[in-house]
Amino acid sequence: MDNIGVVFLSEVLGTGILVLLGTGVVANVALAKNKGLGGGFLMVTIGWGFAVFAGVIVAYNSGAHLNPAVTLGLVTSGATEFGSGVPVNFLSVLTYIAGQLLGAFIGAVFCWLAYKQHFDAEPNSANKLGVFSTGPAIRSYGWNLTTEIIGTFVLVFVVLAFGGGRQGESGGLAALGALPVALLVIVIGTSLGGPTGYAINPARDLGPRIAHFVLPIKGKGTSDWAYSWVPVVGPVIGGMLAGWASLFLLPVLT
Amino acid sequence: MDNIGVVFLSEVLGTGILVLLGTGVVANVALAKNKGLGGGFLMVTIGWGFAVFAGVIVAYNSGAHLNPAVTLGLVTSGATEFGSGVPVNFLSVLTYIAGQLLGAFIGAVFCWLAYKQHFDAEPNSANKLGVFSTGPAIRSYGWNLTTEIIGTFVLVFVVLAFGGGRQGESGGLAALGALPVALLVIVIGTSLGGPTGYAINPARDLGPRIAHFVLPIKGKGTSDWAYSWVPVVGPVIGGMLAGWASLFLLPVLT
Amino acid sequence: MDNIGVVFLSEVLGTGILVLLGTGVVANVALAKNKGLGGGFLMVTIGWGFAVFAGVIVAYNSGAHLNPAVTLGLVTSGATEFGSGVPVNFLSVLTYIAGQLLGAFIGAVFCWLAYKQHFDAEPNSANKLGVFSTGPAIRSYGWNLTTEIIGTFVLVFVVLAFGGGRQGESGGLAALGALPVALLVIVIGTSLGGPTGYAINPARDLGPRIAHFVLPIKGKGTSDWAYSWVPVVGPVIGGMLAGWASLFLLPVLT
Amino acid sequence: MDNIGVVFLSEVLGTGILVLLGTGVVANVALAKNKGLGGGFLMVTIGWGFAVFAGVIVAYNSGAHLNPAVTLGLVTSGATEFGSGVPVNFLSVLTYIAGQLLGAFIGAVFCWLAYKQHFDAEPNSANKLGVFSTGPAIRSYGWNLTTEIIGTFVLVFVVLAFGGGRQGESGGLAALGALPVALLVIVIGTSLGGPTGYAINPARDLGPRIAHFVLPIKGKGTSDWAYSWVPVVGPVIGGMLAGWASLFLLPVLT
Repeated sequence: MDNIGVVFLSEVLGTGILVLLGTGVVANVALAKNKGLGGGFLMVTIGWGFAVFAGVIVAYNSGAHLNPAVTLGLVTSGATEFGSGVPVNFLSVLTYIAGQLLGAFIGAVFCWLAYKQHFDAEPNSANKLGVFSTGPAIRSYGWNLTTEIIGTFVLVFVVLAFGGGRQGESGGLAALGALPVALLVIVIGTSLGGPTGYAINPARDLGPRIAHFVLPIKGKGTSDWAYSWVPVVGPVIGGMLAGWASLFLLPVLT
Repeated sequence: MDNIGVVFLSEVLGTGILVLLGTGVVANVALAKNKGLGGGFLMVTIGWGFAVFAGVIVAYNSGAHLNPAVTLGLVTSGATEFGSGVPVNFLSVLTYIAGQLLGAFIGAVFCWLAYKQHFDAEPNSANKLGVFSTGPAIRSYGWNLTTEIIGTFVLVFVVLAFGGGRQGESGGLAALGALPVALLVIVIGTSLGGPTGYAINPARDLGPRIAHFVLPIKGKGTSDWAYSWVPVVGPVIGGMLAGWASLFLLPVLT
Repeated sequence: MDNIGVVFLSEVLGTGILVLLGTGVVANVALAKNKGLGGGFLMVTIGWGFAVFAGVIVAYNSGAHLNPAVTLGLVTSGATEFGSGVPVNFLSVLTYIAGQLLGAFIGAVFCWLAYKQHFDAEPNSANKLGVFSTGPAIRSYGWNLTTEIIGTFVLVFVVLAFGGGRQGESGGLAALGALPVALLVIVIGTSLGGPTGYAINPARDLGPRIAHFVLPIKGKGTSDWAYSWVPVVGPVIGGMLAGWASLFLLPVLT
Repeated sequence: MDNIGVVFLSEVLGTGILVLLGTGVVANVALAKNKGLGGGFLMVTIGWGFAVFAGVIVAYNSGAHLNPAVTLGLVTSGATEFGSGVPVNFLSVLTYIAGQLLGAFIGAVFCWLAYKQHFDAEPNSANKLGVFSTGPAIRSYGWNLTTEIIGTFVLVFVVLAFGGGRQGESGGLAALGALPVALLVIVIGTSLGGPTGYAINPARDLGPRIAHFVLPIKGKGTSDWAYSWVPVVGPVIGGMLAGWASLFLLPVLT
């Protein structure tokens, strides 16, 4: 398979596992009759954090972006090549983002299958949408956007600071190279996730929202398209700002 | 001792410690008068995750499968040799699985001893069985099987992606090679454990169920044999599918 | 940029990210209508711990003090050079502390922006100040000071024992060098944070208090300047004592 | 300083920090008016786990036993030399244990100082003793002893399996060599801590009990000497059994 095909497959699988596990933890704490019902916000942040851990391990060959904000942040940081050895150009960026969106969609479908009976048993349609996509605690597009920009800036800037992804060694210990980004996602969740539920990743939010829209989920209600642009535009702005800031700051800082 | 004997002993001990600690955390949160009573689902997932951590460290010499789904996933992945240098054949597969089942049985017996008074003090027999084996939140064999297949697929596929187990170096730091699989088990618990309690391991479920059946536990009620095939068949299917998928995907992905 | 300028910028950015994420987790659990409202003390300690993790990664080039108590502890430990290769003298100590204070101020401002609507929605002014700065559970300057001294002593002494910061290798795995200090901050929070909310860092407390004082926060109430000297003086004493103790003890212990 | 003096000092300091942080987390969740009041059993296990992490880092030079059950387990495992290069003999074993007891006593004194006002404010004397020493959920010396033996066996056997302590490299990353034992202590707490509060360390229980007995704690009530032998004898038996088992099993397993 050529490199661009490997990138696509890698991002599909990695983002798929990320979103399956990430949406899964929300399903567990929010949908009726689950064993983890009411498990709390800390459990959600730990679930999403280690979901990223699992996704990054699988997506080794593409550099494990799993997030358009990371891909676009690398572009504005002046990278000429992605971690995978693929040159940065319009086609490769499109391939990354397409893989991420498709993977996020597929991950959400499998989450629905794993929790099928609990989706059926849950009376509240907002809880169902909440498994798939984020929504604001207090709706105000400007401030919601601000929160997503700040959260994604922190994610992408710190990921660029430590180089991200795992390194070339094999074996269990090397897989721990995926741990820093997982811990970072945990802390962004605990610390900046209150107002908007921290999408900080356009694919993570849009892919599952499309899945919510097309799947035959019982009593699913609206997919809230009116809000859908916020967790796309906010993370894109935050990621690109972080890349641009790293262009000036990281040569000094590291 | 010959290699196959070492594998057997290693899997017995590793799975024994895994199941002692894993069933122990459920006993702590679920049985009357315990200090951890009502400790929550997150505590259960952390307990099971680090139970795997401890088991993997002890079972270094057999490659620490501790789970028939892992052993069978390695078979379908086309491995010719297990991590232990033992060839893959009918006898060695049987040895792994027998060791895992025996270890899981023994681990559950020691859990019962450690929590003896709390088993006696607990009025609800379902809580007692819940310490030993998993059960569905909403009984539906087809969907319960689906959830177990998806959960075990993620476990085995990601374990195969990072090569599993710890590497050859000695000392505390090298023991961290057992951490990735522990974190993976935590996230599968938080994220896919809601509907069925995530057996994702036939030995972990069947061995303790046999222990529940034979031990003289006060007021223990039924061992729910009607459900017992789900957490065996689901993980076997999920693990074998993951091995087969890795045969095609991992050469591309890693 | 000359070395002292790099140190300043590095400490500003690292402490900024630390305080943004640290104050953010308190905002999430304490301010009205947040998704993490009532998330509990463990979530707060995990948020602050991994906030330090993120800050340390970014502030690699200055040795990631991010805390005047660490800088002053290094001085009393007899260091002649900071991790950054900058000589220990009055000017360099001042540069570290000025960068830490400015960074903490900026981090708190961004926390306010990220949680703007929740500050507006929160009726209790004490909860608002609690996001920015610490306060005692039982006010008693002498005992509050004692608790801060003990907590900071443990922080600085153990940090000096393991050398702190991350090492020179690149990539995700090396970023784990920032993990020990994060785990240490978590345990100081869980274990010594009950009485005073564990400032253990003068900049972390004073910088955000100044931000609280100058920002136009709706219904913000007092900035409690009467208590403000405790989380400055206590950590300074604790850090300097730890440095001085390490001068005698670490040559023996490590 | 000669080697035996270094061992003594190292064990005093390491066990002191371990017990200060470990008893501290119980004080935080159990004593009136603390910010962490009611923080839950998971928070207690995390606090004790990372308390061990901090103690192990400081006690590098003695091999960081910090626990007579570990020291005695090494003796029965047939070790001829402790990690510190000190020969195994009556005097050195006594030095380890004396250092551990003294350190545990001192750590408990500092915990009392850090939480002084909360000890004064707490009406329930059992909660005060619970900060210092363990007690059974259901009193029954035989079964309580059984639980402590099983818990300590797991601790010492797994520690012997991974060699314990951190290795010789310097810097933050190497300090992670102290992480496996911390994770092990967390899981023993979550999984075997329900019935007795998991002393699994005679010094951790007896040293603070003596501190409770001699300190002028307001309204402190009994030190429960009737139970005090269980968390001493149980861990000693469990640790020695683990050492003896490792003598036969570890040459096969690792």
